[in-house]
Formats: sequence, structure tokens, C-alpha cells
Amino acid sequence: MPKVTVHRKAHFNAAHRLFHPEWSDEKNAAVFGKCSNPHYHGHNYDLTVSVTGEIDPITGFVMDLSVLRELIKSEIEDAFDHKNLNVEVAEFKSLNPTVENIAVVIYNKLRAKIRTSLDISVTLYETPRNFVTYSGD
Amino acid sequence: MPKVTVHRKAHFNAAHRLFHPEWSDEKNAAVFGKCSNPHYHGHNYDLTVSVTGEIDPITGFVMDLSVLRELIKSEIEDAFDHKNLNVEVAEFKSLNPTVENIAVVIYNKLRAKIRTSLDISVTLYETPRNFVTYSGD
Amino acid sequence: MPKVTVHRKAHFNAAHRLFHPEWSDEKNAAVFGKCSNPHYHGHNYDLTVSVTGEIDPITGFVMDLSVLRELIKSEIEDAFDHKNLNVEVAEFKSLNPTVENIAVVIYNKLRAKIRTSLDISVTLYETPRNFVTYSGD
Amino acid sequence: MPKVTVHRKAHFNAAHRLFHPEWSDEKNAAVFGKCSNPHYHGHNYDLTVSVTGEIDPITGFVMDLSVLRELIKSEIEDAFDHKNLNVEVAEFKSLNPTVENIAVVIYNKLRAKIRTSLDISVTLYETPRNFVTYSGD
Amino acid sequence: MPKVTVHRKAHFNAAHRLFHPEWSDEKNAAVFGKCSNPHYHGHNYDLTVSVTGEIDPITGFVMDLSVLRELIKSEIEDAFDHKNLNVEVAEFKSLNPTVENIAVVIYNKLRAKIRTSLDISVTLYETPRNFVTYSGD
Amino acid sequence: MPKVTVHRKAHFNAAHRLFHPEWSDEKNAAVFGKCSNPHYHGHNYDLTVSVTGEIDPITGFVMDLSVLRELIKSEIEDAFDHKNLNVEVAEFKSLNPTVENIAVVIYNKLRAKIRTSLDISVTLYETPRNFVTYSGD
Repeated sequence: MPKVTVHRKAHFNAAHRLFHPEWSDEKNAAVFGKCSNPHYHGHNYDLTVSVTGEIDPITGFVMDLSVLRELIKSEIEDAFDHKNLNVEVAEFKSLNPTVENIAVVIYNKLRAKIRTSLDISVTLYETPRNFVTYSGD
Repeated sequence: MPKVTVHRKAHFNAAHRLFHPEWSDEKNAAVFGKCSNPHYHGHNYDLTVSVTGEIDPITGFVMDLSVLRELIKSEIEDAFDHKNLNVEVAEFKSLNPTVENIAVVIYNKLRAKIRTSLDISVTLYETPRNFVTYSGD
Repeated sequence: MPKVTVHRKAHFNAAHRLFHPEWSDEKNAAVFGKCSNPHYHGHNYDLTVSVTGEIDPITGFVMDLSVLRELIKSEIEDAFDHKNLNVEVAEFKSLNPTVENIAVVIYNKLRAKIRTSLDISVTLYETPRNFVTYSGD
Repeated sequence: MPKVTVHRKAHFNAAHRLFHPEWSDEKNAAVFGKCSNPHYHGHNYDLTVSVTGEIDPITGFVMDLSVLRELIKSEIEDAFDHKNLNVEVAEFKSLNPTVENIAVVIYNKLRAKIRTSLDISVTLYETPRNFVTYSGD
Repeated sequence: MPKVTVHRKAHFNAAHRLFHPEWSDEKNAAVFGKCSNPHYHGHNYDLTVSVTGEIDPITGFVMDLSVLRELIKSEIEDAFDHKNLNVEVAEFKSLNPTVENIAVVIYNKLRAKIRTSLDISVTLYETPRNFVTYSGD
Repeated sequence: MPKVTVHRKAHFNAAHRLFHPEWSDEKNAAVFGKCSNPHYHGHNYDLTVSVTGEIDPITGFVMDLSVLRELIKSEIEDAFDHKNLNVEVAEFKSLNPTVENIAVVIYNKLRAKIRTSLDISVTLYETPRNFVTYSGD
């Protein structure tokens, strides 16, 4: 059967700050700029999850997109939306919530829930001009 | 010469429904949800066709994008636009018009018309949040 | 208190056809073109509902946008989404479902549910290039 | 001379929470939902400032858009970008930072800097689906 | 009948420069910045034409959008697309092609072709961040 | 460390024409259509630069996006923005400025400035419907 990639978009709004806990405020400001503001700032994160596999000859689906939508909701949106990533999300208690690291965390959470015959990839926009892609490499 | 991918966007508006002809209405509704509505629903499909090849040193083109635009028009838009995919498009008389299957049909129709030294890929949006990519694998 | 307009976007996917029931197929085709296809076609309709009123000094809201979101869902999305407008939506049994008429129907349904001290306006996209605005005039 | 409206887009990323200081956590959660999270969340705010006036017959400008861009930068972006609106922006120390109230504050800050022969209007997106317009009424 | 505004989007790509013919190069550069480059620069102009009137009770149309589309094509796109506005478009031989002035010229060209019982308005984007609206005032 | 692609968007506005210097005006018009207009036309070019590498475990960055933003500004925007590509940009004095060739030139300019352990890719939109991708192959 043909191998197709299906993509589903989602989003969440969250606060965060970038900093290294062992650095001084001055060094954090020098490296992370205004992103290191200790009072936090925030973003509307736009997420695309891409799943690659063969089309099922009975349904015509690679993966039911409403199943994927609910999986993104329960695993990612419910965990991250309207949250302070540094304070309220376990994965970022000891990991700097750069857009790179957030994408890897999202990938790992979804990878654990999607069968391994399907490849996955995650694209995450922090702003309309800054975004990242992670495919598990 | 450098190998570049050129992309051209197009679109068509069509009605469809998802269903398996051997299943009961109940089973179709269970699997395909409101997409199985027997009275049809519809979408604005957004299509990107991507063509990869070497730049022609004389013209600076991989492929003349106005030729690609006309090819998409004659092969895809004229065949699908303002049509009922299930009823009026031959390929979907016995193939469920999921966005995955529509993308494969589009790919195959264009693949037959573009010289084989060029690789092609098709991205098809069914809604702004659900889309697929097929590259002939 | 300052008078502000709050806007909320929503969408629905539907099938329709344009035609006048007393006209011949030829006349319908002459006036409505491929939009009169008797087998239907469809669109992703994008809707913006705008509500104008004074800011409540306690909440800082003109109208709670989650209330507006649920109202659009129950009145418009549940009634129109994944439907055949001509066949399944009562208002269009005897009214041609042009984007103008759909916008007026949406306005009237919402106008009946939003208190009259608030002005409302409806913008409806049939395609990214064709859209209408109706404000009850 | 013809009277034209010129529009300039800008953006800022900020953290905020919605709450009424005299209410209990329960009441704040009941009214503002997850937007009342005491740890804050955030948004990419997209701003359009619109200025209406006659075209200057010498320059062809209503207002030099690079002057407007710098004014938005100094008055709005420098004050709000990468900030916690509740904690770090004076206007919101005693004003709930709903998107309605933020738009009014932006309008008032710009109104004080643009000559009164020009009318102004502010459109502010909190998310791609929720936005407001304020024109000083 | 309800009064509705119908909008149609179009676009054209053109070169231009901003300058005052009686000013020195230095003064033109001081006022118009890099937009006064004598070698020209260019834009993808995005145009929305809005037409307001009563819905025709027979067709359900304010104005047939395919007629409006063809009118924009013949009057605006054919005249401006892939042109140098200063050199090749008569209206700008003695009028600085600022986005304000281009919008007024477009409005006047369309106003002459659309019956006066319909109100019209023109929105023209020079870039995604700079745009203008003109309604004949 | 995980290997992630970070993307940064930028843009520039420029004039150009497509033509082959050894061809007659007739032949240039036959091959390049209205893009060969000797008086030039122009575009808002939208650029995405993608950089792939391992996440730095200290900063959480693949590459500091503000460094990438400044590099794009100094190497590409300052060189191309508000310019006539054929007349004012050295690379196109003897190279037809098709969107394919512009993307290759941008890639080569950035490749020289980004360390070789990072892979790069360039996506360039000439219009919202025509765009190209080049990854150095």
C-alpha cells in the first residue's frame, strides 16, 4: 500500500522563561536575552504532528485523524495549555524549555503512545517566525 | 547543476463522503463519524505540488512553473473542482475518498505527465488542520 | 466604559449547490456556473462573529468569549458542520445557500440568542478569496 | 484630499493571568477558567494599529508608516514584549489584563502620541481565534 | 432585503519607487528611505475589493462574484500586474505610487464600472504588515 | 543529543526581471512571459532558513535564533531588500534571478557563514503560490 504522511495541527498557550540554574542573572541575560526574564513571558505554541505509514486498504486511513487529535489533546494540550512550563510541567523542572527541548519532549510523549510501525515527526512554532522540527534522530 | 524543489499551490472545492460500501450505516458512522453523512459534506482542498530536479543552466528553471500550473489545472482542478468526488470522479467510484487516497490519486495522475528525471511530491490539505503528504513511496 | 468589539472565529465544512428551483438546468448553469452542479460541491466555511458592547468593569469582558464559543458551537457548528445545506438545513429548503444568504441566516440565529444591548456582525468566508459581512442592516 | 486608513502590524509576546483580586481562587477559576492560573500563561499578541486621515499631497502619505512603526515599538513593544503584564506593566497592576483592556490601554498610549486630526483604531489578537477592536468610543 | 458586503481578493506583482520629482536625491532618500531607490524595488500587492448592497431576492447575490473577479482582472490586474508602476501605468506618471495613492486609483477605476447603488471599498496590502483601506470619502 | 531542525523566517522586497541576455525580446517574452518585462516588476520574497544539528546540552539551543536572525539580516536582507536584483546585486549580473537561482545564491552565502557541523536548507517564496527549497544537493 502507498506510504503517506498525515499531519494534524494543534496549539497551546503557555508561559516560560529560559535560564540555566547555575548561572548568574547577568550570564542568563547575556545568553538568553529578554527570554530570561524571571517574571516569565509566554507564547501561543502551534504544533503539527506528522505520522507516516501505509494506507489501510479497508478504511483508507494511515491513522484515524480523530484518534490522533484526541491523543494530542490528552498527552500534550491537557498537560501544557495555559500552564507555566518551568513551574508546572514535570519535564521542564530540570530542562530548559527552549522550543527545541519542548519539541523533543512532545515527540517522546507521543512516540510512547503511537505504534512503532508508524514514524512520527513534530513541528513546533514558538512564534510565526521561529519554529523547529524533530523526527527522533 | 544544483538540485532544487519547486512548489506550486492550487485548490479545488468538492463534496465527498467517507464510507465502506459493504458496511452498515451504523458501522460506517462508528468508523467515519460525521464524515460518513450520506447526504455528503465538502471541503476547500488546498494542494501543493512539489517537483525536484536540476536547474536548467539556460533558463534557470527546474520546471517552468506556468507549465506546472497548467498541468495541475487540466489534470486535477478541471477533474475535481466543484465536483462530488464519490459520484462524479471515476477514481473514487470504488475507492474511499479519504484525504490520503485523494493525494495518491493526484500523485499518480501527475506522475504520468511529468518526466521521470523529476521527482514529485503532493501535499493536500482537507482542512487547515488536517493534511497529508505523498511522495510515491 | 469603553465600547469594544470582540471577535471569535469558528468553522464548519458543508456541501451545497446554488440553483433556482423554477429555472431549467440550462438557466441555472448560465447564472450559477459550476456552483449549480446537481451532485453538490462543498467548502470549508470560516466564520468570524463580532460582538460590540461596553467592557464590564468587574470582569474586563465585553462578553465571555468561551460563552460566545459555545453559542457558536450549539447554534451554528452543530447545525451546519458536515451537512448538506440544501438537503439537511431547514433554512435553505427554500432559500438559495449563497454565502450572502448563509451569513444572514447565521446572523439571525445568533441575534436571537445574544442580548440586544450588544451589536453583532458576521463575516463568512466561502473560500479564502470570497467572503461576506453582514451586520443586520 | 482622499481620506484613507493606513494599517501597521506589530506583535509582542507576554505572560498574564486573569483574576479579580477581591475574589477567592474558586470564584476566579469559575469566572476565568484556566486563564486564572496563578502561575501565569502567555500569548503571542498580534497588533494592528489603524490611522485614518487625508493623504498629504506632497508625500502621498497619510502618516509615514516607518514613523508609526517606531512609535508602536517605543510605546508598546518595548513596554510589553517578553513581560509579565500583571507584574511588570504599570497599567495592569490594578486592571485585569483581558484582551479588551489591553487594547484600550494600547489605544490610549498611542492616542496621546498621534495628532488629533488623525483617527486611530487598534485590533489586538490574543490567539488566532480571539481578537478585539477598539476605536476610542 | 438585507444589506450585505461581499469581498473578493486578488493580487498583482509590480515594481515601483517613491520620490518627489522636484526634490534632490538626498531629500528623497531622507523622506522615502530605501523606497526611493532609483533602480526600483517591488511588491506582491494583495487586494480586497468590498461591495455593499442589498441581496437580490432571485439569485441570493449582492453582485455575482465571478463578474467582480473579471472586473478586477480587466481593470486592475491586467493594468498593474508585472508592471513598473512609475514607468508603465499612466496614473502614476505624475502621482507618487504610495500604497495610499495606489488604493485611491484602484477605487476610482472600479467606482466607474460598478453601479452607484452599490458602495465599494478597497483594501490594499503592500506587505503583510503595511496596508491601507479607502472607501471613497 | 537529539538532532533538531530550527527554522527562522525573514523577508525582503525586490525588483527583478527574467531574461537571457543573448536572446531577442521576442524569445525572452516567449520563454519568460510577462516576467521578462524590461521595465522590471517585483515581489515580497519570504525566506525560511533551516539549520539542523544537535541540541547543545547547556543552552538547549541548536543555534541561537537571534544569531541566525542577525546573520540573515546582514548577509541577505541588507544585500537584497529594496534592491533591483538584476542591476544592484553582484550575483545576478550574469545569473538569471529566477526563484531557483536566488535560493541557491542565498544558500551559498549562508553556507559560508554557518559552521559545517550544521546542515542548512533554504525555502524561498516568490509569491504565496510559487516557492522553492534548496538544501545544497
